[in-house]
Amino acid sequence: MNATASFISPVQDDILAIEALMRSQADGHQQDLQAALNLLLAAGGKRIRPALSMLVGRMLGADHERMIRMAAAIEMLHTATLVHDDLIDGSLLRRGMPTLNSRWSPGATVLTGDFIFARAANLAAETNSIEVMKLFAQTLTIIVDGEISQLFSNRCKAEREGYLKRIYAKTASLFETAAQSAAIIADAKPAVVEAMRQYGYNVGMAFQIIDDILDFTGEQATLGKPVGSDLRAGIITMPAILFAEANPQNAEAADLLAGDCLQDDDRLEHLIGAVRESSAIRASHESAARYVDAALDNLRLAPPTSERYALEDLATYIVRREF
Amino acid sequence: MNATASFISPVQDDILAIEALMRSQADGHQQDLQAALNLLLAAGGKRIRPALSMLVGRMLGADHERMIRMAAAIEMLHTATLVHDDLIDGSLLRRGMPTLNSRWSPGATVLTGDFIFARAANLAAETNSIEVMKLFAQTLTIIVDGEISQLFSNRCKAEREGYLKRIYAKTASLFETAAQSAAIIADAKPAVVEAMRQYGYNVGMAFQIIDDILDFTGEQATLGKPVGSDLRAGIITMPAILFAEANPQNAEAADLLAGDCLQDDDRLEHLIGAVRESSAIRASHESAARYVDAALDNLRLAPPTSERYALEDLATYIVRREF
Repeated sequence: MNATASFISPVQDDILAIEALMRSQADGHQQDLQAALNLLLAAGGKRIRPALSMLVGRMLGADHERMIRMAAAIEMLHTATLVHDDLIDGSLLRRGMPTLNSRWSPGATVLTGDFIFARAANLAAETNSIEVMKLFAQTLTIIVDGEISQLFSNRCKAEREGYLKRIYAKTASLFETAAQSAAIIADAKPAVVEAMRQYGYNVGMAFQIIDDILDFTGEQATLGKPVGSDLRAGIITMPAILFAEANPQNAEAADLLAGDCLQDDDRLEHLIGAVRESSAIRASHESAARYVDAALDNLRLAPPTSERYALEDLATYIVRREF
Repeated sequence: MNATASFISPVQDDILAIEALMRSQADGHQQDLQAALNLLLAAGGKRIRPALSMLVGRMLGADHERMIRMAAAIEMLHTATLVHDDLIDGSLLRRGMPTLNSRWSPGATVLTGDFIFARAANLAAETNSIEVMKLFAQTLTIIVDGEISQLFSNRCKAEREGYLKRIYAKTASLFETAAQSAAIIADAKPAVVEAMRQYGYNVGMAFQIIDDILDFTGEQATLGKPVGSDLRAGIITMPAILFAEANPQNAEAADLLAGDCLQDDDRLEHLIGAVRESSAIRASHESAARYVDAALDNLRLAPPTSERYALEDLATYIVRREF
């Protein structure tokens, strides 16, 4: 986490407790499983989902022990989906670290993902809230359904509505559940639960759009993967969609609008360069910023606590982040 | 289900309702997912887990709607683990029907399994019982942990304790949860919940031992796979263990006792033939029968209803079944 992530401070100790709880989930199980879980957790990540969840929980006075379990459940669910995703995509690196599937057999990787799903479900059940458990199961359904749609759908189509549905399933749905579940555990009023759900949704949408921008504007060393890797995989994200919409006369853009995949490496490099230099990057940033504005609006009626300010920081950090 | 399965009659309509509920779990989702789920459910299976669960629930007066959801959750969880198992083992047939991984890419198969896990968790949450939800998550952990142990452990070792642990994880744990959860939903007294848990455990252990016997004594056409397929895969089950223990002077048996895999096809065929003709088959049957006796004993204090007699039938059916 870099210096700009000031929103972490109120929940710094919580994050450590959540990481310890996550690591302990393989205790007493097969030792290779323990090694795998340690490897996955050591690879880190920003822990932005549990931070968001803990901040909402603390702001609304939720029980601490139940919150720690819920936030760990959210991050474990996220981790499990990454394990299966990397296997399916054949990704060898994530955040610059070797993926599990780069070292283990496909079978061991599938089962490790399943184990982490099981432990996540267990942690969610330990919140003792049936409502949280239902949200949790629904969110897993949404995430997996989104991945399956992506697998079976025409990938190379520049199309805004499909993109927004995809990033909701992939990212915003879990942010939404992280915030909403915290409000449920706090036994907040329905209007507050709904405002927190929307806050999570808006932060999640902004987060994924920025991620998709960084895939174009980042450097390979920081990204831990080649620039434009989404486009190379036939996944058309916000910058490419806005570029295509604004430049229908461009040959590569026309292909994306028609849903034709670019097979030729030179044309792909050309398109990636064109998107990087275009105003589509700024326009994508503006789109993310609108979600952040909506998220700040969702906090309007929140109590003026340090956690509320941290949640505001978290939302604005999303559009400022550079990795 | 063949004619001997008289225990089905009291819950015949329930099984139809459970199958309809299972099929509906992909409604509104990707159409390939719907096709996959229909394929998996059409392949059938004996539905012995939901039947057991519904009989316990009916005997103890559990709420019908909650029971249907719970029994469907159990069968969905079972189905999801089979989807991932068949992928990992590279199995092309199950019950004589093509497996999902024989038709679909590994990625689509992994995600379909994940989707079914998600829907199973959803159905379990719809029982509105946190206790059932916890059991459900724990059982998934036990099943996956068992599969991982099998993947990483020395396979070719004839060893009774390891075998019993393996079949508990693979099979008896879910039977246990199917029976115990029904008693929990019925709000039964702790002693009754415990007796039902043990009934499920004992039936599950017997069921898997008989399955492992049939792998030796069945015919390829009925099994839908070659005779002795476990041994061919380096999985040493009850008949092979009892044979090896009784015949330590036999060269192949000595290898199994030492934990050495048989690499040579002729030696493998020789061993399979020897096990088939040995008294280890009868001894394995006796071992299964002892679990069935224990299961009948667990029903001792149950009310003398038609469901109790059906549960007795179910237990004794296990050792009589021939497919």
